Amino acid sequence: MKHPKSLLGLTAALVLASMPAFGQDAAPAAEAPAFAPVADTAYIFNTLLFLMGGFLVMWMAAGFAMLEAGLVRTKNVSMQCLKNIALYAVAGIMFWITGYKLMYVGVDGGYMGSFGPYSFDPVGGNALDTGYSTASDWFFQMVFCATTASIVSGTLAERIKLWPFLIFTVILTGILYPITGSWQWGAGWLSEMGFSDFAGSTLVHSVGGWAALSGALILGARKGKYGPNGQINAIPGSSMPLATLGTFILWLGWFGFNGASQLAMGTIGDVSDVSRIFANTNLAACGGVVAAMILTQILYKKVDVTMALNGALAGLVSITAEPLMPSPLLSIVIGAIGGIIVVITVPMFDKMKIDDVVGALPVHLLCGIWGTIAVPISNDGTSFATQATGIAAIGIFTLVASGIVWMVLKVTVGIRVSEEEEAMGLDQAEIGVEAYPEFGVGSARL
Amino acid sequence: MKHPKSLLGLTAALVLASMPAFGQDAAPAAEAPAFAPVADTAYIFNTLLFLMGGFLVMWMAAGFAMLEAGLVRTKNVSMQCLKNIALYAVAGIMFWITGYKLMYVGVDGGYMGSFGPYSFDPVGGNALDTGYSTASDWFFQMVFCATTASIVSGTLAERIKLWPFLIFTVILTGILYPITGSWQWGAGWLSEMGFSDFAGSTLVHSVGGWAALSGALILGARKGKYGPNGQINAIPGSSMPLATLGTFILWLGWFGFNGASQLAMGTIGDVSDVSRIFANTNLAACGGVVAAMILTQILYKKVDVTMALNGALAGLVSITAEPLMPSPLLSIVIGAIGGIIVVITVPMFDKMKIDDVVGALPVHLLCGIWGTIAVPISNDGTSFATQATGIAAIGIFTLVASGIVWMVLKVTVGIRVSEEEEAMGLDQAEIGVEAYPEFGVGSARL
Amino acid sequence: MKHPKSLLGLTAALVLASMPAFGQDAAPAAEAPAFAPVADTAYIFNTLLFLMGGFLVMWMAAGFAMLEAGLVRTKNVSMQCLKNIALYAVAGIMFWITGYKLMYVGVDGGYMGSFGPYSFDPVGGNALDTGYSTASDWFFQMVFCATTASIVSGTLAERIKLWPFLIFTVILTGILYPITGSWQWGAGWLSEMGFSDFAGSTLVHSVGGWAALSGALILGARKGKYGPNGQINAIPGSSMPLATLGTFILWLGWFGFNGASQLAMGTIGDVSDVSRIFANTNLAACGGVVAAMILTQILYKKVDVTMALNGALAGLVSITAEPLMPSPLLSIVIGAIGGIIVVITVPMFDKMKIDDVVGALPVHLLCGIWGTIAVPISNDGTSFATQATGIAAIGIFTLVASGIVWMVLKVTVGIRVSEEEEAMGLDQAEIGVEAYPEFGVGSARL
Repeated sequence: MKHPKSLLGLTAALVLASMPAFGQDAAPAAEAPAFAPVADTAYIFNTLLFLMGGFLVMWMAAGFAMLEAGLVRTKNVSMQCLKNIALYAVAGIMFWITGYKLMYVGVDGGYMGSFGPYSFDPVGGNALDTGYSTASDWFFQMVFCATTASIVSGTLAERIKLWPFLIFTVILTGILYPITGSWQWGAGWLSEMGFSDFAGSTLVHSVGGWAALSGALILGARKGKYGPNGQINAIPGSSMPLATLGTFILWLGWFGFNGASQLAMGTIGDVSDVSRIFANTNLAACGGVVAAMILTQILYKKVDVTMALNGALAGLVSITAEPLMPSPLLSIVIGAIGGIIVVITVPMFDKMKIDDVVGALPVHLLCGIWGTIAVPISNDGTSFATQATGIAAIGIFTLVASGIVWMVLKVTVGIRVSEEEEAMGLDQAEIGVEAYPEFGVGSARL
Repeated sequence: MKHPKSLLGLTAALVLASMPAFGQDAAPAAEAPAFAPVADTAYIFNTLLFLMGGFLVMWMAAGFAMLEAGLVRTKNVSMQCLKNIALYAVAGIMFWITGYKLMYVGVDGGYMGSFGPYSFDPVGGNALDTGYSTASDWFFQMVFCATTASIVSGTLAERIKLWPFLIFTVILTGILYPITGSWQWGAGWLSEMGFSDFAGSTLVHSVGGWAALSGALILGARKGKYGPNGQINAIPGSSMPLATLGTFILWLGWFGFNGASQLAMGTIGDVSDVSRIFANTNLAACGGVVAAMILTQILYKKVDVTMALNGALAGLVSITAEPLMPSPLLSIVIGAIGGIIVVITVPMFDKMKIDDVVGALPVHLLCGIWGTIAVPISNDGTSFATQATGIAAIGIFTLVASGIVWMVLKVTVGIRVSEEEEAMGLDQAEIGVEAYPEFGVGSARL
Repeated sequence: MKHPKSLLGLTAALVLASMPAFGQDAAPAAEAPAFAPVADTAYIFNTLLFLMGGFLVMWMAAGFAMLEAGLVRTKNVSMQCLKNIALYAVAGIMFWITGYKLMYVGVDGGYMGSFGPYSFDPVGGNALDTGYSTASDWFFQMVFCATTASIVSGTLAERIKLWPFLIFTVILTGILYPITGSWQWGAGWLSEMGFSDFAGSTLVHSVGGWAALSGALILGARKGKYGPNGQINAIPGSSMPLATLGTFILWLGWFGFNGASQLAMGTIGDVSDVSRIFANTNLAACGGVVAAMILTQILYKKVDVTMALNGALAGLVSITAEPLMPSPLLSIVIGAIGGIIVVITVPMFDKMKIDDVVGALPVHLLCGIWGTIAVPISNDGTSFATQATGIAAIGIFTLVASGIVWMVLKVTVGIRVSEEEEAMGLDQAEIGVEAYPEFGVGSARL
């Protein structure tokens, strides 16, 4: 992936010159004059960008937790909280054990990197030649991996068993996500072909979406969601303020997600690009909210608050593949189309009886595809054909590979709770702690 | 607005030298020696300050959402969540379409800037002469605009219709806020007169407060709030933890609000001033909490948790007009007086039958005025007369202009839901999604 | 405290050269060449680290508020919210009035610093010789002090009176915490002896834990917690999502807590170390979650969500004494042992009838001790004997001193609400605002 920013001038080149090829945005080598102070400063800025971006994206784990806790029923809220903190913990460990090296070390235009745990620079690390601290880079890439896992938990809520879900998370974050990630951000074959996905509409969001889709197909819908005569029963979430909070958290975190994916801010050009990305990211989310609201008003004569929230997320996912190049207006439009996609496709999934508890498939899978397809509108260095190739390759791999994992889990340990447990709620059945013991009516209601 | 920091030395002058006159803190031109690396570094630091300040203030939108969701009744919680995410989206778009240029471009000592959408620097922007990235500045100013709109939604909660509220938001964020903003931060007539409002006690908080006040007067009180015989009925909010969370979020965001309003941190003097601002801002909030708690204990023999929360916000609003110059002790005192103002004036608004659901008028309007009046205590370059002039001019304009908008909306589309809808709650009436479907008693209770 | 980073090279030495001895990590003096621009830049970076770390740790106050609001019963939720915002306000003021100088000014190898309020550098502060802005340092140290107070409120929830608790907070944050803090971070006797506590496993977390333990012993258990025949009654918390949110907030804030305790990021070595600390801190938390989950599954055949949450916090506390030197694997192990400690010791406290509402004693006290003991495993410059000396000295002082304060409060103003008030709940009894007036069953249930 050759990014325009690598052409911006000597200072950038100096810093990025010897950045290894497994950086998210590998830059071509350049002559590096002996001008250490500036390189030092750029190293600090770049590392700081990873750390800030990293803690903002880490915060998205809380966003998913709150969004999902708000959109499931009270009887499953504790479980959803548990799954979200557990998956973040699992991802954090797996991306150290196998993930990082599989994704970034020794890919060389191929299909995966090497196996084994990753080592950071030693204390007082002085590896100026990377242009940033290796631990900061690991931290930043790790939280992206965790985001992918967060997407899956929402779709499969309210009926999947805890431990099989976590075993899947081990494989997703330790093996599957790093493999497809290596194809592009690890300088693998897709990257060499010219595919472009700035911050992961496809590599993160669609991958999470495909893994969720295969899980939803194999797991089946919640009892009572789809009636015998084709009717679709709405199952309202337990807390709109928590869902709203989760959405705001995700929106905030996305500035780190997209902004820090510039991977450098040690030059005027880079930090200005990070700024453009902040502004465009925000505009796209605004476009998603407004479009979803207007469309639901027209279609249903009322605005559905969950659609407005998902509209924001749809706009954010849609701009993620290319948050830098679009004009402000194009950013709004890209986000607005994302919002429209969500409003239109949520009922479509229901018609296909694919039960997606939080709407993650429209948001992360479909808008991830849309955002990736839209890259060539503003980025001359890309083509629709290449983008489609990347989408298809990563989609097929993830759908098939995660499908196999889900099937193996299903026939071995089982992935679905019993009907009695589902009716009782996972909180009582699997973890023994009610979310709201004093005021939830829990299973008595639905 | 000539700010002391512009006098701090050559390095600051170098960076700020060619900062255009529409910066929030325009600095006088100075000789800029050819010392590019330092200017580069300062540019990056300044831009980073805008980005960090920007994401912290963006987070305040979530704070308002949670505060308001916690202070309305369950039957209106979904609507309050929806309004808050919608107004942030509207503000984000409007401040691009008209807001920024109206506020900052071509004001030249006058009463407003120019019309039209704003363009950021191109990709890889190299506009060293501004001293910061234009997109980062836009992002930072945009979130201030959104804050103003957030203030309005709280006061008018539980009875205003969704779409008329959003139409008002369009006008407030696209036209009204930018016009009064241009008078001061756009280097307009108030700025030339010597008015001082560092981070917006008047320009943001009072403007939001005046717009909310005119709305409250025209909209009327909630049914049942004021009895026929003069009694005032307390209508408790639905969730104290959400209100507390919202307050903490706002407190956190305020470090960006006040700290990044220094507008530069590329020199020792600037970053030290940002630090003073952080410390003073925190001390003022602490003073507000403690004063409000002690006063409510004395007056009512109990501490009201909502008063403690509003005390924090009162302290924050009060210090916002001048968070840099005061000593720590003066910061505490300014905040404490803010806390006292809130405790004393909340019942006054009720006596006047002005129904302010979340206490936004005491907090944002009155403490905004207090904070602006208090500037000359610590800032020698200002006078009480000029401060009063600015407060009055902006107050009259905003009260009248927003009053006209509310009246036009009232006689055309209508701004208030029907009595039946108000009793039922806006969640069922207008958006069809209950906030807590499994445990809220909703309309059954109040 | 001589930290390895001070040996990393000339640039670090330049900046840190004249850092006063009361810095958390005082460095040895070195020759400072006349190379102002780099020193300027390092000053800005260091100050920025304090500001970022500071706002992240400030955010932990919200984390404690949400965690505790989620783990108490509905009838005490408003009070818990109030206590948390009030204690943060009190700490903020007290650490200015007496705390900072008592902890950092003039300790000189002794047992405490000097008395009196602290003064920041003047506006436009140019104190290059400190290497950072004094106000930023104050802000960062203040939020650590507030964290200590937050720990106490959780243990003593649901039965302690508001004002006596706040009086204790005044003394803890203004006198007790600063005194023991001065022994180490103020360059006092423990520091000279070679004790090592990077970010405060002992100085912050155990101190909070000891103060909470002495309070719990003197205050006694909640009515109904321990039955007459030795049975232990579980009293479930009111909201698991709030507890989860609080845990995620704390996890996020911990990057500032540990990362910014490096105290400098103006060199490649320092910012790389901050990065290692981010990564290790995250890995330890992950280890704590996974270990707690697996162990509860084995012991109880179910995973307890509150144990998973406390496992995360246990991992974080455990790594806090030395987040820099361990390898990734060792970080995971240190955190995992923390998680195991919590699972094993929560029932032990109950057997001793020490009623710790939120599990703060296992998490902050015991894991704080564990983390401090574990320092020599990775840090050659320390010894188990010295570590044990520091733990014991600080523990005995805090347990005794805070015990005296609690006893004085008990015999003068009283510290415990009446049995009727406890049954009714503190929200009605002491503050008159219910947390969830529309759906909490409050005292009717438990």
